[in-house]
Amino acid sequence: MNTSIIRYILGQVMKVEALLMLLPCMVALIHGEEEGFGYIIVLSIIGITGILATIKKPSSNVFYLKEGCVATSLSWIILSIFGCLPFMITGEIPSFTDALFETISGFTTTGASILSDVEALSYCSTFWRSFTHWVGGMGVLVFILAIVPLSGGSNINLMRAESPGPSVGKLVPKIRTTARLLYIIYFAMTFIQVILLLLGRMPVFDAFTTAFGTAGTGGFGIKNNSLAGYSAYIQWVVTIFMILFGVNFNAYYLILLRQFRKSFSMEEVRYYFAIIAGAIGIIMLDICRTTGRVLTALRHASFQVASIISSTGFATTDFNKWSQTSKCVLVLLMFIGACAGSTGGGIKVSRIVIILKTVLKELNSYIHPKSVKIINLDGKPVEHEVVRATNVYFMTFMIIFTLSIFAVSLEGRGALTTFTAVIATLNNIGPGLGQVGPTGNFGILSHLSKYVLMFDMLAGRLELFPLLILFHPAMWLEMLVSKSKKIK
Amino acid sequence: MNTSIIRYILGQVMKVEALLMLLPCMVALIHGEEEGFGYIIVLSIIGITGILATIKKPSSNVFYLKEGCVATSLSWIILSIFGCLPFMITGEIPSFTDALFETISGFTTTGASILSDVEALSYCSTFWRSFTHWVGGMGVLVFILAIVPLSGGSNINLMRAESPGPSVGKLVPKIRTTARLLYIIYFAMTFIQVILLLLGRMPVFDAFTTAFGTAGTGGFGIKNNSLAGYSAYIQWVVTIFMILFGVNFNAYYLILLRQFRKSFSMEEVRYYFAIIAGAIGIIMLDICRTTGRVLTALRHASFQVASIISSTGFATTDFNKWSQTSKCVLVLLMFIGACAGSTGGGIKVSRIVIILKTVLKELNSYIHPKSVKIINLDGKPVEHEVVRATNVYFMTFMIIFTLSIFAVSLEGRGALTTFTAVIATLNNIGPGLGQVGPTGNFGILSHLSKYVLMFDMLAGRLELFPLLILFHPAMWLEMLVSKSKKIK
Repeated sequence: MNTSIIRYILGQVMKVEALLMLLPCMVALIHGEEEGFGYIIVLSIIGITGILATIKKPSSNVFYLKEGCVATSLSWIILSIFGCLPFMITGEIPSFTDALFETISGFTTTGASILSDVEALSYCSTFWRSFTHWVGGMGVLVFILAIVPLSGGSNINLMRAESPGPSVGKLVPKIRTTARLLYIIYFAMTFIQVILLLLGRMPVFDAFTTAFGTAGTGGFGIKNNSLAGYSAYIQWVVTIFMILFGVNFNAYYLILLRQFRKSFSMEEVRYYFAIIAGAIGIIMLDICRTTGRVLTALRHASFQVASIISSTGFATTDFNKWSQTSKCVLVLLMFIGACAGSTGGGIKVSRIVIILKTVLKELNSYIHPKSVKIINLDGKPVEHEVVRATNVYFMTFMIIFTLSIFAVSLEGRGALTTFTAVIATLNNIGPGLGQVGPTGNFGILSHLSKYVLMFDMLAGRLELFPLLILFHPAMWLEMLVSKSKKIK
Repeated sequence: MNTSIIRYILGQVMKVEALLMLLPCMVALIHGEEEGFGYIIVLSIIGITGILATIKKPSSNVFYLKEGCVATSLSWIILSIFGCLPFMITGEIPSFTDALFETISGFTTTGASILSDVEALSYCSTFWRSFTHWVGGMGVLVFILAIVPLSGGSNINLMRAESPGPSVGKLVPKIRTTARLLYIIYFAMTFIQVILLLLGRMPVFDAFTTAFGTAGTGGFGIKNNSLAGYSAYIQWVVTIFMILFGVNFNAYYLILLRQFRKSFSMEEVRYYFAIIAGAIGIIMLDICRTTGRVLTALRHASFQVASIISSTGFATTDFNKWSQTSKCVLVLLMFIGACAGSTGGGIKVSRIVIILKTVLKELNSYIHPKSVKIINLDGKPVEHEVVRATNVYFMTFMIIFTLSIFAVSLEGRGALTTFTAVIATLNNIGPGLGQVGPTGNFGILSHLSKYVLMFDMLAGRLELFPLLILFHPAMWLEMLVSKSKKIK
């Protein structure tokens, strides 16, 4: 195990976080808030630690998948632990557990909040809270890959551990260029959304924070009623951008290359839009039956479907009060999630497609036992290894899901709350149903449940395995061995 | 597609069912009930149809997996459709949907009932209802294989389609001897249970019907409060036999061969007992916390754990009122189910073990990418095909599970009822929680939900694929083609 490169990467992550914290400091300056000092203190601590950790270059650039996984998991944990300190120092979220929950929820782009009154936060803290979504959406290591020259080494393993989806989408052969391209697309789309929101006369501060929450598919609202208070125009803009940020970024890259046909024929993206259209249709019919107002129903249905499938979690209405059928559609969408290679969470459309095709193949093999059917995606056969990994992913997902439900059920809050609290965090969505629905919050839960859900949020964002191997005894053994070797 | 052999097998199934219906007729004679005529009428119809269908021997004995699946699925559907007619003719369950639901629930050894007052049934109908459990437990096709000489043909495919578990347990090379051995063990164990129940001064009728429900791991009670009214001794006898009928029958065969060590070292059986012990421990502690009476807590906990993991579904207490934690343990047990090669339902312990080992293997491959780990069970490597089939089984299970929940949610009965109604039927358990808990019944559900749950019960009992391919368009096409060829 190459611990020195892990130390080096963690140092880089801390330096980047220190830089990022300059933004809330600026916000505090503009609004004349003393809470800004909290950010300056934390910023100095992380900055100095980061610089100290990166003075010495790593002794070796050898970099395997396990180093990638450990570096990624530890980065996200360190980001969150330091990221939550300002909330504690300013006294806005005094409990460490709560502050950590809120920050992990931010960086993992979940958007599950423990706050009952969001509007009581200072401007700088509201900004930092929403900004963590934007940082976590594309991934902080992807950012580091884009700016820091990690010479040599197969740093694809870092990207593999942090990027969502069954197979890593390298846009171009060079990993650094890929990372830059991704951030350029991400930045440009966020910028366009801010402009469109400003055109709808949204205040500048609201426009930026809302765009951060949308781009990262996070979902922290800055108002207690999320987006319910804004105009229909603004709600539509957010709806469209939530859907767009759930699309595989490869599609945008292809558009940049003017390969429109190839971009629009991506199978995963087509299924994604088909699922969205179907879900909106069902829920709209369901709402219309009771209210009769078609346009409002269309707006609420579209907004909620986009918010849930992209794993954002904004709300314009209390969907907890919707019928059992509509709620069931939403729960299904929670599991499906967005496209691979997007900022969204969930199991991912491409995995669902591969799973469905695997089952169909099995059925066919009963009828024609000798036919060896290959699973195709985008007209190309899916590698056996990807199919296998998808199956294992799905099973691991269900195991973590089941164990988490068991742990959260210990506090006895009823099936719906327990069930959806786990779904909403493991899939990085945000609000669930019942007591953790859009009008409730996660603050009511016990400490045990909160830590379980924090684990789920990280596991969901890092796609299970990178986080899980951190808890594997063999991993710790290896780290200790390589440490003791060095001491000798 | 060899349709003539399917016709022949279905004919045999009907002849067997006609013979089986002689038993409720005898019960009606003993108790002087006119309801017996209903059984005589149905018996005559099925008997004659069966004889007509089997006069002509099949034109060919060629018998592939697809014929096995179709014959099995159709057998179970025909068994249930004809088996429900007596309930309608006697007027005890006038609705066809309800009668069919009750009969499918019986043959699939689910034990989910639509009756609110079980004690109002006549003796002969109560007997028939419980007897379907016994018939369905070991499988009617296994019975036919044991008695009817299906000359030539690879009739292992019939057994493969009907037997529970990831791989077919042929006890001895000859399939007919295996089928006979299974039925001999099954018969002997049922007999011993009846004797033990009679020793506890249970009435003869109650002893037989309760033993049928236990042996098939069915769970139809003959009293409205299931087994709550019987003595502690009787409850303990039933507890032990529920656990025993959930054990892989291979273990009993090995005991018959005096290979005790081999029998007791079966990995699946060991895990099965470990899970039972763990679950009883948790629930007992949980009940003790509120009541403080250790022995009663132990009895209720053991009974309920045995009842749920073996997928029987008897009840001695209203576990719907237990704490969230205990209910959560029960729901976990519902998914796990009994051992493969037993009469029990669920995903099966061996599948769960294979799934967990697959996930562990994946984790290890992150740390040691080059190590090719093989999954072992009972000290022998598990064939790749079995691992693959288990993965696909699990995914298919989750898909059917999800779609069923969606369909049942349409009537809006709350998450717990919807969720557990599907689990309890797909895993062939019986009672769920909420409105379909041990004191409720499935009669309250809509027709749509009932048909969905009937599908789930059959899919659960036949282990998904044999039933699913019946709905595959390619299957129907083949049948039509082979029909039209014959006409030419």
